Amino acid sequence: MTRLIEVLDTTLRDGAQGEGVSFSREDKIKIVHALDALGVDYIEAGNPAASPRDAALFAELARQSGPAHATLVAFGATCRAGANADNDPGLRALIESEAPVISLFGKSWRFHVDEVLKVSVEENLRMIGDSVAYLVKCGRRVFFDAEHFFDGYATDPDYAMATLRAAADAGAERLVLCDTNGGGLSGEFGRITAEVCAQFDLPVAIHCHNDLGLATAGTLEAVQHGADQVQGTLGGFGERCGNADLCQIIPNLVFKMGFQCLPDDNLRALASSARYIAEVANTSVPANAPFVGRSAFAHKGGMHIDGMVKNRRTFEHIDPESVGNRSRYLISEMAGRGALATRLAALAPDLRKDSAETGDLVVMFKALEGEGYTFEDADGSLELRILGALNRRERFFEVLDFHVISRKPDDARNSQAYVKIQVGNEVEITAEEGNGPVNALDLAIRKALTRFYPALKATRLQDFKVRVVGGSGTASRVRVHIESTDGTNSWATVGVSENVIEASFIALTDSIEYMLMNEKRKNGEG
Amino acid sequence: MTRLIEVLDTTLRDGAQGEGVSFSREDKIKIVHALDALGVDYIEAGNPAASPRDAALFAELARQSGPAHATLVAFGATCRAGANADNDPGLRALIESEAPVISLFGKSWRFHVDEVLKVSVEENLRMIGDSVAYLVKCGRRVFFDAEHFFDGYATDPDYAMATLRAAADAGAERLVLCDTNGGGLSGEFGRITAEVCAQFDLPVAIHCHNDLGLATAGTLEAVQHGADQVQGTLGGFGERCGNADLCQIIPNLVFKMGFQCLPDDNLRALASSARYIAEVANTSVPANAPFVGRSAFAHKGGMHIDGMVKNRRTFEHIDPESVGNRSRYLISEMAGRGALATRLAALAPDLRKDSAETGDLVVMFKALEGEGYTFEDADGSLELRILGALNRRERFFEVLDFHVISRKPDDARNSQAYVKIQVGNEVEITAEEGNGPVNALDLAIRKALTRFYPALKATRLQDFKVRVVGGSGTASRVRVHIESTDGTNSWATVGVSENVIEASFIALTDSIEYMLMNEKRKNGEG
Repeated sequence: MTRLIEVLDTTLRDGAQGEGVSFSREDKIKIVHALDALGVDYIEAGNPAASPRDAALFAELARQSGPAHATLVAFGATCRAGANADNDPGLRALIESEAPVISLFGKSWRFHVDEVLKVSVEENLRMIGDSVAYLVKCGRRVFFDAEHFFDGYATDPDYAMATLRAAADAGAERLVLCDTNGGGLSGEFGRITAEVCAQFDLPVAIHCHNDLGLATAGTLEAVQHGADQVQGTLGGFGERCGNADLCQIIPNLVFKMGFQCLPDDNLRALASSARYIAEVANTSVPANAPFVGRSAFAHKGGMHIDGMVKNRRTFEHIDPESVGNRSRYLISEMAGRGALATRLAALAPDLRKDSAETGDLVVMFKALEGEGYTFEDADGSLELRILGALNRRERFFEVLDFHVISRKPDDARNSQAYVKIQVGNEVEITAEEGNGPVNALDLAIRKALTRFYPALKATRLQDFKVRVVGGSGTASRVRVHIESTDGTNSWATVGVSENVIEASFIALTDSIEYMLMNEKRKNGEG
Repeated sequence: MTRLIEVLDTTLRDGAQGEGVSFSREDKIKIVHALDALGVDYIEAGNPAASPRDAALFAELARQSGPAHATLVAFGATCRAGANADNDPGLRALIESEAPVISLFGKSWRFHVDEVLKVSVEENLRMIGDSVAYLVKCGRRVFFDAEHFFDGYATDPDYAMATLRAAADAGAERLVLCDTNGGGLSGEFGRITAEVCAQFDLPVAIHCHNDLGLATAGTLEAVQHGADQVQGTLGGFGERCGNADLCQIIPNLVFKMGFQCLPDDNLRALASSARYIAEVANTSVPANAPFVGRSAFAHKGGMHIDGMVKNRRTFEHIDPESVGNRSRYLISEMAGRGALATRLAALAPDLRKDSAETGDLVVMFKALEGEGYTFEDADGSLELRILGALNRRERFFEVLDFHVISRKPDDARNSQAYVKIQVGNEVEITAEEGNGPVNALDLAIRKALTRFYPALKATRLQDFKVRVVGGSGTASRVRVHIESTDGTNSWATVGVSENVIEASFIALTDSIEYMLMNEKRKNGEG
């Protein structure tokens, strides 16, 4: 039987330590649900003792009755030096988070006990043991995070082992071996993990950082030598060079090493989950990311493409679709019709995978992607583009003209937009002011259209993101991504242009058209 | 004595296969000189048989009498099936490149011999042997690139070894073991490399790709088991997920494993060399890149910063300066006075951690973070805000007024900006047009200021990001993050407002002021 490896994702805790990473509460809840849907076993969602915002997140998750499949984990420190575990505010906050599992971290490196904690080695062991015992007494499962374990083992293996022993004897369920500084060689991790597994009758977890570029290797090495749980972040978010990247670790474990990990079919959602979380973090999956990057199966060399045409196995080490990715040929554009097939089944059930229209759609989307569009996270625009190309898109309005004036701000509403819009045979001219040109334009277009489409009143923009795609500086191409809501449903649209106003205009008008189209369908008129 | 490991960089050959990578001849010559200055042993500069542009590059390098320290390498295929090596146009092009070393690639995987070459296994061995012998006869040193060696060894080890034997017997100087598809597990590479080293009395090279996220691990594993040359690209450029990244491999070999590699002091130029090559490639070193990334030694967690202040070794696995990088303390809500104090040490050494001004600064930054600012990735604005609060910020200009008009786009340059700027007692009024309001405003401000500060001409915006922070829709608060460069250094600034134009205006003017302040310091006037 293949060994089952548990997955713990710490994007919301250790991942949030990454430079430039900052999640709102809504972002965090989105990420919990995305990880849950992917099938990770444990979601470490924050440190409720150190951060009131994390405490509020746990309270909110408890109110929503948490994720469906995954188990929530709260992270925090042992009790303080000289303090009683029963009476420690940090441990109390962990209990109050209502998380069923606590990742309790303690020092395993004597150097840190001396230099940072500045307590005796015995007191450190007491803090670990008492804290674990207290949490267990309160009905929590405890994973003991042995901070700096590998550095500690290198200088004083007996003491590093004694910290694990203190946690195990007090009732910890998992021993987590951490390479906190990311400075350990992966080869060492196997040997040391095997040693821990030999001495303890508890599942062991491995927690690596990528400071040497070896986090994936170290994690696999530890599993090979007995670790039963891998810890990391989906996309490698994390302090300095990031945590071990689960997007690399999981497919390696499953496809290259034959372990079991996540419900089987879920691996096909790996790439889209990674892109979704990156989008929430307002970043993007690096094109060259192993397994899930846009370029991970992109073939450019002439000889490589020649080989691929003869047999895909010549230059692809796995089937890209097994992780939800796809092959791309950068010189001779070839069809990825399969990707569109599921969409078309709903939108245009009369079209077949091998029909001429499907081929034309593939060509159109490839060209749009070349311009910087991504439709992965913009279903609304994707649907409108498909219907448009098939001449099945209804036009609800046309913006004949607009201009926007923005001034040096004296008060917030410093921008004025003028619009001229046609609906049927009627033309409406109006204006509105707003906070910035895009807001003013959005408000003016809605004002002009509300007379014709009163349902628009209930909708509003929920999120608005801009980023440069390819090129450099403010003059290069930008992608505007908009999320809209009517309070119940939400939908996303996208626009790309050299010009941020035009990109915003495309995404805004797509958003309104998509809403009107769905409104009409809902009312049975479509 | 420590073993000396040779370095071969293939940025210009295999690296150029990366998606979006495209080097002009001038770019390539710049990169050759940068690699040469860093001290790599071999520079694989292209495939003169397959590309006339590469042939012209070798001719140009020969005319310039090539790099000073490094040896140039030309890459190419064996002679064709059934063809005579003495009379093969591809081999002739390699000779004509005048490169002293030829990387000659041949098939080591039977599957490829059958499916791609479609020749007999004997003919493949003949092609390898004859081609090597011919090049050696012409006075060239030959490195034999055993393509797909590890895949070949896994399915037919005897045949894979026979291809190496054919090359060795014909006079090859190095046997290069390639994981061309990047699909091999690093653990295997050690065992197989040891087997090759045992059977051949020739130096062995290792050439990995990063499709599993294991290129660094595989390379180190092979060196540990006897390989004497590492191949990769400085920055990990390359097809799909990239080649093995020499920025990771070299410091691991030297600092973690005790090998010798590059002239000693040159490692201090690693980070700047990587940034320079990335800049030439019109990309940038990822912030989280091990060793050389901007975040590689950036500390954000409060407990980590506390530890670092007590002893840097607590959270840094090497001295960042040994690879030309530096420690950074990120100011975020997670950290407090400790992080700020490390900044103040450089900016205002007279202030203490417990002085009243420091307390005021902490309060100010907490308020700004509440508004949606994050300074952890905006060093420029952070510094300006600190100096401003201490009344130590010099004002180089004041924007008295501006307005921007944006129209429904007919062509890209649809926005016009008017600005009125004061410098000292002089007032400059001017205008500019651009692609969108922010671009137009940026260009107009620079136009007005260049008369006073000509150094501004050399600077440009490199990246521009917008995201909504807290709140909802286009009318909510937005954060604009800008990265600027003068070609050598780069710096980041940030602005937050309900209004995207104002947020951009803050980040833009911060960027210019920060540059002018540093320019003045550099000229010893500050």
